[in-house]
Amino acid sequence: MTADANTRDIAIIGAGLIGTAWTALFAHHGFRVRLWDPHAAALDKAVGQIPGLLAQLAQIAEAKGGAEWITRCDRLHDAVAGAALIQENAPEDIPLKHALLAEIEEAMAVEAIIASSTSALTWSELAPGLRDPARLITAHPFNPPHLIPLVELFGADDARLDRAEAIYRAADRMPVRLRKDATGHIANRLASALWREAVFMVQEGIADVEAIDAALVNGPGLRWSVLGAHMAYHLGGGAQGMAGYLAHLGPSQERRWAALGAPVLSPEVCAALIEGVETAAGGAALPSWSRTAMRR
Amino acid sequence: MTADANTRDIAIIGAGLIGTAWTALFAHHGFRVRLWDPHAAALDKAVGQIPGLLAQLAQIAEAKGGAEWITRCDRLHDAVAGAALIQENAPEDIPLKHALLAEIEEAMAVEAIIASSTSALTWSELAPGLRDPARLITAHPFNPPHLIPLVELFGADDARLDRAEAIYRAADRMPVRLRKDATGHIANRLASALWREAVFMVQEGIADVEAIDAALVNGPGLRWSVLGAHMAYHLGGGAQGMAGYLAHLGPSQERRWAALGAPVLSPEVCAALIEGVETAAGGAALPSWSRTAMRR
Repeated sequence: MTADANTRDIAIIGAGLIGTAWTALFAHHGFRVRLWDPHAAALDKAVGQIPGLLAQLAQIAEAKGGAEWITRCDRLHDAVAGAALIQENAPEDIPLKHALLAEIEEAMAVEAIIASSTSALTWSELAPGLRDPARLITAHPFNPPHLIPLVELFGADDARLDRAEAIYRAADRMPVRLRKDATGHIANRLASALWREAVFMVQEGIADVEAIDAALVNGPGLRWSVLGAHMAYHLGGGAQGMAGYLAHLGPSQERRWAALGAPVLSPEVCAALIEGVETAAGGAALPSWSRTAMRR
Repeated sequence: MTADANTRDIAIIGAGLIGTAWTALFAHHGFRVRLWDPHAAALDKAVGQIPGLLAQLAQIAEAKGGAEWITRCDRLHDAVAGAALIQENAPEDIPLKHALLAEIEEAMAVEAIIASSTSALTWSELAPGLRDPARLITAHPFNPPHLIPLVELFGADDARLDRAEAIYRAADRMPVRLRKDATGHIANRLASALWREAVFMVQEGIADVEAIDAALVNGPGLRWSVLGAHMAYHLGGGAQGMAGYLAHLGPSQERRWAALGAPVLSPEVCAALIEGVETAAGGAALPSWSRTAMRR
């Protein structure tokens, strides 16, 4: 099998929400996708959901493939053999992932890439599951993976990272590389930091849950959908950019940081958060896309 | 003068970037705007910039007014007298603002609202400048005010807050209320918390400035432009929503918070930030809207 041939072959391991979204995404972009899950019921459910995901994708970009590019596999070996990229989406359990990675490693092409979608775990925690850890990268998508472009990459083998990046770009993703392994990668660290302050404001009674969400969605969220946080300070720094900002306002920003909160998820804070989102959802237990949660 | 008549009369005090954007916004939405600044050169510059801002606004929503709705005033009294809302945009200097607020209070209609655009100061710091502090609210826009809908409100008089909110809604803004006076209001507290972690990742060498910005813009920023942070956890909590999230993942979120960073803007970190944004800007000292800073 040539390198050219198998760069269009993708294995998806695990047919939960994330694996199913990856399957639809790669098929839409003209990759041959082989999907495996240890549970036949999960495969049934995934196969039922894929047409809906493909329809969403067709609204965003022209389809180069579709459902006919997807093969349901009953054995892991059939999915993995000959694939250039094996996207792993198993539960966030280290012993379980180690066993699965070992099984994948037995079946995979020597030069292939195992890409773990792990959110909670790191490359360093997963790598001991392989004989050759260079075969593993973490490739964390932001949910839902077929709609949000970000994929966060970390690994030990630059050649494999380059090949993986090319594959994700061909599937219209935006791969971003970490220089150092870190829990939460980049995006979830940012999300966690922001939510900490959002919870602090609820704890302190500065604003309601609904008001905080409305401020985010109609203010900085709107900006951050087009402009990064560092670049926003560069543009806000006047003619000297970031250097001017740091020289004039760096000390005040450090004082601001010192005044940010460290909330505790006490029963009272939890109750305020739960009541707040239920109010914002307009009485519905769970909105699908609540009007009140969203920008006008 | 009837209440009905003067709810369409707005005074803009200070013709810098923020005051000029407010002027264009209110005129576009059919308010009569009287603009004053102590410096004639600032008024000249504002008058020159307004047609461009109005043209941007016309791309977003149908114009109910335009440049002919704007009056340039050489005396503060002429701008303030009879206005329902006086939007103050002076430099962030407490003695200067106190003196200005006192001057406005002399000229204003008794039931009018003074709305300060202050970003760095709080209502409690400004209120001592007035004989009747109930006349003052803070109404912080997110830059640029004619394009970003958010306006963060705080004040002591609910009736004035209600009237101000109605005026901002008529100008197609999204007013959000604080329950308690707080430095940074809501949005800049969130922005500061997020940037702290973004700077920490640069300090620790986890990722480059450009990678962090790309992760934000192509991941959580995209989500936060439609969905708030609290609501995202509600939707991510499964069938039990926020309650389920807090019960199952609250403790791990608290551990994550404890692992977030507290960076120091040392010379080394500042140098990395400056070099990073310059790299991201593609060699330009300051991009207007850098392609590399933005989502694809």
